[in-house]
Amino acid sequence: MAEDGKLANGAGRIDFATDPARYRHWKLATDGPVATLTMDVDEKGGLFSGYELKLNSYDLGVDIELADAFERLRFEHPEVRVVLLRSAKPRVFCAGANIRMLAGASHPHKVNFCKFTNETRNAIEDASEHSGQRTICVINGTAAGGGYELALAADHIILVDDGSAAVSLPELPLLAVLPGTGGLTRVIDKRLVRRDRADVFCTTEEGIKGKRAAEWRLVDDAVPNSKLEESVAARAKEFATKSDRPEGEKGIALTPLERRVTPDGREYKYVSVAFERDERLARVTLRGPDAPPPASVADMAAQGATFWPLALARELDDAILDIRLNELDVAAIVFESAGDPAAVLAYDAFLDLNRDHWLAREIRLKWKRVLKRIDLTSRSLVAIVAPGSCFAGTLSEIVFAADRSYMLIGQREGDNRPPATLALSEANFDWYPMSNGLTRLATRFLGEEKPLDTAYKTIGQPLDAEQAEEIGLVTFALDDIDWEDEIRIFLEERASFSADALTGLEANLRFGGPETMESKIFARLTAWQNWIFQRPNAVGEEGALRRYGTGQKPVFDTKRV
Amino acid sequence: MAEDGKLANGAGRIDFATDPARYRHWKLATDGPVATLTMDVDEKGGLFSGYELKLNSYDLGVDIELADAFERLRFEHPEVRVVLLRSAKPRVFCAGANIRMLAGASHPHKVNFCKFTNETRNAIEDASEHSGQRTICVINGTAAGGGYELALAADHIILVDDGSAAVSLPELPLLAVLPGTGGLTRVIDKRLVRRDRADVFCTTEEGIKGKRAAEWRLVDDAVPNSKLEESVAARAKEFATKSDRPEGEKGIALTPLERRVTPDGREYKYVSVAFERDERLARVTLRGPDAPPPASVADMAAQGATFWPLALARELDDAILDIRLNELDVAAIVFESAGDPAAVLAYDAFLDLNRDHWLAREIRLKWKRVLKRIDLTSRSLVAIVAPGSCFAGTLSEIVFAADRSYMLIGQREGDNRPPATLALSEANFDWYPMSNGLTRLATRFLGEEKPLDTAYKTIGQPLDAEQAEEIGLVTFALDDIDWEDEIRIFLEERASFSADALTGLEANLRFGGPETMESKIFARLTAWQNWIFQRPNAVGEEGALRRYGTGQKPVFDTKRV
Repeated sequence: MAEDGKLANGAGRIDFATDPARYRHWKLATDGPVATLTMDVDEKGGLFSGYELKLNSYDLGVDIELADAFERLRFEHPEVRVVLLRSAKPRVFCAGANIRMLAGASHPHKVNFCKFTNETRNAIEDASEHSGQRTICVINGTAAGGGYELALAADHIILVDDGSAAVSLPELPLLAVLPGTGGLTRVIDKRLVRRDRADVFCTTEEGIKGKRAAEWRLVDDAVPNSKLEESVAARAKEFATKSDRPEGEKGIALTPLERRVTPDGREYKYVSVAFERDERLARVTLRGPDAPPPASVADMAAQGATFWPLALARELDDAILDIRLNELDVAAIVFESAGDPAAVLAYDAFLDLNRDHWLAREIRLKWKRVLKRIDLTSRSLVAIVAPGSCFAGTLSEIVFAADRSYMLIGQREGDNRPPATLALSEANFDWYPMSNGLTRLATRFLGEEKPLDTAYKTIGQPLDAEQAEEIGLVTFALDDIDWEDEIRIFLEERASFSADALTGLEANLRFGGPETMESKIFARLTAWQNWIFQRPNAVGEEGALRRYGTGQKPVFDTKRV
Repeated sequence: MAEDGKLANGAGRIDFATDPARYRHWKLATDGPVATLTMDVDEKGGLFSGYELKLNSYDLGVDIELADAFERLRFEHPEVRVVLLRSAKPRVFCAGANIRMLAGASHPHKVNFCKFTNETRNAIEDASEHSGQRTICVINGTAAGGGYELALAADHIILVDDGSAAVSLPELPLLAVLPGTGGLTRVIDKRLVRRDRADVFCTTEEGIKGKRAAEWRLVDDAVPNSKLEESVAARAKEFATKSDRPEGEKGIALTPLERRVTPDGREYKYVSVAFERDERLARVTLRGPDAPPPASVADMAAQGATFWPLALARELDDAILDIRLNELDVAAIVFESAGDPAAVLAYDAFLDLNRDHWLAREIRLKWKRVLKRIDLTSRSLVAIVAPGSCFAGTLSEIVFAADRSYMLIGQREGDNRPPATLALSEANFDWYPMSNGLTRLATRFLGEEKPLDTAYKTIGQPLDAEQAEEIGLVTFALDDIDWEDEIRIFLEERASFSADALTGLEANLRFGGPETMESKIFARLTAWQNWIFQRPNAVGEEGALRRYGTGQKPVFDTKRV
């Protein structure tokens, strides 16, 4: 059940599925290698009732469409090498996250909203870094707060130099919160704005215009209106030339997911979700492929969105988002799987063999994003490896993403299926870096080469529970006598702990080793923002977020912490 | 004024000055190259009234003594190569931070308490990494929460294997908070405990004992009582042999600071602090040396604690801590300086020339720690470079630590002192890495070599305001016409912003680039802990921290954020 008031469409849950024909806030047009994604937010199109999305301000509904557009550009338009991000509103690029929406939103919704918008911006950068699809942001007026943060996700920012268009991060002076969608991190670590200038910029409500914005590196070019289109076209051409996107390939359609929603579950083609509400659990079962891999990349392309790895990734992504936003009371997600491990490995081998094909690349990158989404999901993650399961290669990443994993030794009484196995593939050593830049196995064996080498040598071998435990791939290998009780007691205990403390614990233990701009956004920046979102100076009755637009000044506790 | 209730000694402020003769909680003994620091907390010796420090639990007062002991070991005992950290209580090493103290403490005190204890543990690690003084922790019983986190700061942990001694991080199951003194980060990133085992460990209230603790890497050795002393002695000998501490040198006494406390200021020998309470400012003036550097290292050692760089560093450290803990309403610290820049550079040159001398090394490392303490101080930091100032070399680090700096172009009307200058020395390029591992100049010019090279070429040259601005060393160079108004308006505006939002902003903008274990502790871990310290599940009337020890179970909001 969605947490915040009433969804404007009368539904009981937030739906992440959409497509361009249903967009209310964006227009997507392609012209050969250049796509134009135009923001034109429908004021009356808010996800919840109670606010209007003026001046291209956004809520989660607007961002769901943005994320969908970028997904489609990758799969449906392999010919697109440059995306122009523009506004259809005169003199306004984007006013950022809608303040009335934020002021009225619950703490969990605010946090989950920020997380999703961060993931969308990271996906824009991922397309640039790994798919040869670069983004140019054209700022025709005001780009304030989240509006400028959206621009920061682009490779290149062009600002109209007309004496009024400006970029700004006015959150602190105006609302007593931080720019929560990566703004502070990207200003410093991506655009390399000098830290004292960043301090000036982030405390200047009206922002910075024209040449100074360029000189301070807040934008790349400040150009007069008369030269804008020429400048945009030249830059688009330059970027298109450098891209390694394929020549002459046709995209595949991201057809609607097969999904059946019941009060206590979700049924997709390859994913089932069962809620055990009294235990505060969501059991997510992933099913292996029902056929061997296709004979050729042409056949893969012909299967399109029904190609098993892609179908499963999309379904899993939708299921995770559904739990995050609509099922706040779920303490733990228990991952199980069903199928033939060898068949899963065969798909990994197929993707590995065709790793240079654009679609195979996109599918790997999609899995990378879905797995990152799981890492960043603030619920306890548990993997159960039992007879009948198919945690192999790509699917075993779920086991390594889990906070804990349990694997059954041998068979269960009354079940004559063979004992469970776990198996690795090349995918586990290279394809899916976490947001810290390391693979899940490298994070698991942080700073050590030997166990990683040992694991590498087992590629393709089915490992039984005792072997998997010995190599360090699962937390506990248990026999049938202990199995049910141990897991039940663990899950009960987990549900009894403070939800907040678990969120903090998991956010710290999951990401060992180095930090990247992405992990800094989710750790340092987000954690501070979450703290501020709890402080009376922002969210109290007299706080800035509540008082914004009322004409009353906020009242602050002046004590520094 | 101290924030929390009544100080047990009846004073109005927390005092950071102490010495071994006054310790109530620790005993420091040295025997050649081995020092033993024994924790024996006086139950009745709490810093505030209202709780008893049972079972070697600690509060800020206990940690002030610990920090003092490690400072003295570095300066007063250059012969000490190994520190044994032990407990005088039977079957208890340390029970961690006192829970009743935490439950009764204000949010700012909790946060500042954690920050100081983190800095103390970092200083223990710094002594090991940079001063050849290693620490062995001997755990004779229970090491719970902060008790185990203290052990984690050591190079080596020996646990008695007697069937009952255990290490634990019970904060989450017991109190619904995180281990807030680096525990999560050090378990993962220093001791390389596998993340799923860390999850088990941090959710197991009773902790882990004996061989399993060693197997999981939570400790280095688990030895029976009968072999304990032999094992400790052997390890101490091994570490002493490897140390690069000097042979045959005598320490210098860290004599009490000269300090006069008035209602609106502090007067040290080289530091003045003036509080402008209506403006919520602390003006900190640093004075340059009153004599040229000594002729030799022997003369430096003879000057001891009165040697200008050391005296100034100690005074500045005390002043910063005083503001942090006792002056919560100060929004900004304005740094000024007075003296001869050439004289300051002469001291840097002296320290550089004698960089291999143990005392010169310790003084550089002390400055490094003091400057890090400034970086981590949650107040707006402002540097004012005006005629008469001496921001050169080491002192100019204060300008680069500041969130913003203002430098006057030329002279002020009615003041015939020559225009201000800024000057660099080798110190700015090497001696003082921040907690992100980069120098302040490298952080300022993040990812760029050219401006750093340009700055390096100016070493020793007095730079006027326009040159300093051109090179990028100050935020604004202003002439006399704008000077006073610009700074006044800025400081007024700063004081009008939300204190919390500024804390979050500064924590993000100050630390660009890479992260280290240390910066992760202050960013990711601390920010999450601060958030949890605001959440009802921990601190609410029915929260775990409040209900601990009452016999009543806490009541949790089960929603995950």
